[in-house]
Amino acid sequence: MSEPALDGLIDALRRLPGVGVKSAQRMAFHLLQHDRGGAQRLAAALTHALQDMRHCSRCHTFTESQVCATCLDPRRDARLLCVVETPADQAALERSGSYQGLYFVLMGRLSPLDGVGVGDIGAARLLERAGDGVVEEVILATGFSAEGEVTAHALGTALRGLGLKVTRLARGVPAGSELEYVDLSTIAHAMGDRR
Amino acid sequence: MSEPALDGLIDALRRLPGVGVKSAQRMAFHLLQHDRGGAQRLAAALTHALQDMRHCSRCHTFTESQVCATCLDPRRDARLLCVVETPADQAALERSGSYQGLYFVLMGRLSPLDGVGVGDIGAARLLERAGDGVVEEVILATGFSAEGEVTAHALGTALRGLGLKVTRLARGVPAGSELEYVDLSTIAHAMGDRR
Repeated sequence: MSEPALDGLIDALRRLPGVGVKSAQRMAFHLLQHDRGGAQRLAAALTHALQDMRHCSRCHTFTESQVCATCLDPRRDARLLCVVETPADQAALERSGSYQGLYFVLMGRLSPLDGVGVGDIGAARLLERAGDGVVEEVILATGFSAEGEVTAHALGTALRGLGLKVTRLARGVPAGSELEYVDLSTIAHAMGDRR
Repeated sequence: MSEPALDGLIDALRRLPGVGVKSAQRMAFHLLQHDRGGAQRLAAALTHALQDMRHCSRCHTFTESQVCATCLDPRRDARLLCVVETPADQAALERSGSYQGLYFVLMGRLSPLDGVGVGDIGAARLLERAGDGVVEEVILATGFSAEGEVTAHALGTALRGLGLKVTRLARGVPAGSELEYVDLSTIAHAMGDRR
């Protein structure tokens, strides 16, 4: 059973992150057997997104305009710049309703083992953006994984060199958790940063 | 952050089996940021597969021809017909090298809870195919899940009604396993079918 059109589809689906050969097969069979409309829609959505999505020239997130709606919003506090790894992280912060400043989206994080260096996460663009004379504080909201911490450390050093105030999201016990189920490193940080 | 082209891509990816909103976001960001070539290839592969893939008129598997290569192979034993749920199951049997007959691919299995009835898995087409006067034995190789068993039972009853010999793959202890790690129902079946 070697069918080039089917094998090509399975190969293309395998390139998606988190999709192995079994999932790719299942997806291809599902689309061809049960959801040809979905397959058509996915092909069109891919083409449309490739054509229309570009990076915001200010915050680097994905947008269909030159500058994204958030960066253009005059109600935003332009003195605050929050650095996040991905648009999904930005969306999570927005949903929290706790932040009124602007953003810079790295579209990644430092990961020396995977060959992702400072140049690959737009650090130079961030320094240029943060040094616009309006930004006063940069909030580093990269993740608290090892890679997120390394990214925050490297960017923090460079940003402090520009004379900016640099902060990091607080670490602590998540809302709604029982202490006994919280990992020890989180408890230690929460104790150290108690207020 | 509401960007129609991006949201459309995320929605289309969510329709893939096993993909939730978080995975769909991650896939969309990955494609746009790191693998635009992969996105282009996926769009082309989808269009290509939708255009070219049809069902084999004999075994119902996916093929680009009227009749698939397996069904056309004169070295195959046309007296044996093996019924499988998916092309992936067929491929697994082929890799095992243990079968030289022909196939019928259901492209599914009975699942009354999901509204998948006998009509949805091509049972009428199977009965027509199996009743061609050449087939002598039908091997039901649907899975040993509850749904696979129900499918085998329903198809077996109908096929026996045509006067055909109907068999099922043997159940037993998987090759290379230690008995202590095999589940009890498998051991019970292996004991009952001992030879």
